[in-house]
Amino acid sequence: MKVGILLFEDFETLDVFGPVEILGRLKDHYQVSFYSQSGGLVKNTHGVAIDTKPLESIIGGIDIFLIPGGFGTRKEVNNNTLIDAIKQISELSKYILTVCTGSALLAKTGLLDNRIATSNKRAFDWVITNGKNVQWIRKARWTVDDKYYASSGVSAGMDMTLGFLQDRHGEAFAKDVAFQIEYHWQEDKDNDDFL
Amino acid sequence: MKVGILLFEDFETLDVFGPVEILGRLKDHYQVSFYSQSGGLVKNTHGVAIDTKPLESIIGGIDIFLIPGGFGTRKEVNNNTLIDAIKQISELSKYILTVCTGSALLAKTGLLDNRIATSNKRAFDWVITNGKNVQWIRKARWTVDDKYYASSGVSAGMDMTLGFLQDRHGEAFAKDVAFQIEYHWQEDKDNDDFL
Repeated sequence: MKVGILLFEDFETLDVFGPVEILGRLKDHYQVSFYSQSGGLVKNTHGVAIDTKPLESIIGGIDIFLIPGGFGTRKEVNNNTLIDAIKQISELSKYILTVCTGSALLAKTGLLDNRIATSNKRAFDWVITNGKNVQWIRKARWTVDDKYYASSGVSAGMDMTLGFLQDRHGEAFAKDVAFQIEYHWQEDKDNDDFL
Repeated sequence: MKVGILLFEDFETLDVFGPVEILGRLKDHYQVSFYSQSGGLVKNTHGVAIDTKPLESIIGGIDIFLIPGGFGTRKEVNNNTLIDAIKQISELSKYILTVCTGSALLAKTGLLDNRIATSNKRAFDWVITNGKNVQWIRKARWTVDDKYYASSGVSAGMDMTLGFLQDRHGEAFAKDVAFQIEYHWQEDKDNDDFL
């Protein structure tokens, strides 16, 4: 399956590279690429810069579309061109995964209306203003509603990605990946220690 | 403090970006940059490519020198030019942090002789062949010996980096960073669930 990761200025480092570590190492199943609104180099304030392809190259959808969070989302929720592209790609993609405040961007499209979703607990009160008809779940490590997965803050993106693997490949498969990267997977999506 | 991250072809994604998430967000304390033997774009098999400066620009040492692991280490342990540069930089740097099989590269310099260190448990038997006089500790999430920190596999790099923050700034500081990124920090460096 092809995995498209959305980047924008000031994305959160681990929101992106936690899931990339997990999916990227499963080369027989997943192939990771990075995208941004116009393509080219996208930077964040942690000193990380990644080259991206333009979003229009996946405007017809992709197998897995991952939307990270970060301070950049505060600006991007008002970027109508980006929100429209996220909407079109998400409608046509098989799975949409959001990490942290990435759910604010997806909520802004309206596609999460009447669906459950969660987000970073430190930014929760801001995130929910971007989707008044979303059934926001405050206490959750991650949520699943049909093809939409949403994780809590930063590190929770790894737990959600392992949960996604469990849903696709079974529990033993996901546990083996966690073991390979020596990661203590929090398997219970409904538990949340960071409220 | 200036943080220099060593990259080489086929570095492990999370070995790098777990610590970068933790140190990079503390902008008042740490400034992260990426280096490689010759500078330029360095890629790994997860589809990640990062632009780097040449190692010679920090040959006089840096505050924190971080050496990640990954399959690339299997090749780089035999790259004498790189090992010599790692040796010179590590001798002159304040702290040296290795993640996963990064300890094989540092062991190869001889600087870990008669010191304790650990590494990835899935690669341990290979790693220890690169430093016969190192006191390898198999059961450890991370080890500290003077200015040398060494973590176990992949995700353990985050626990070690939080431990490093604890040693510099106190326990409350490190716990607050873990909380901000909603990370379940394994605080006990001597415990290891991945043997």
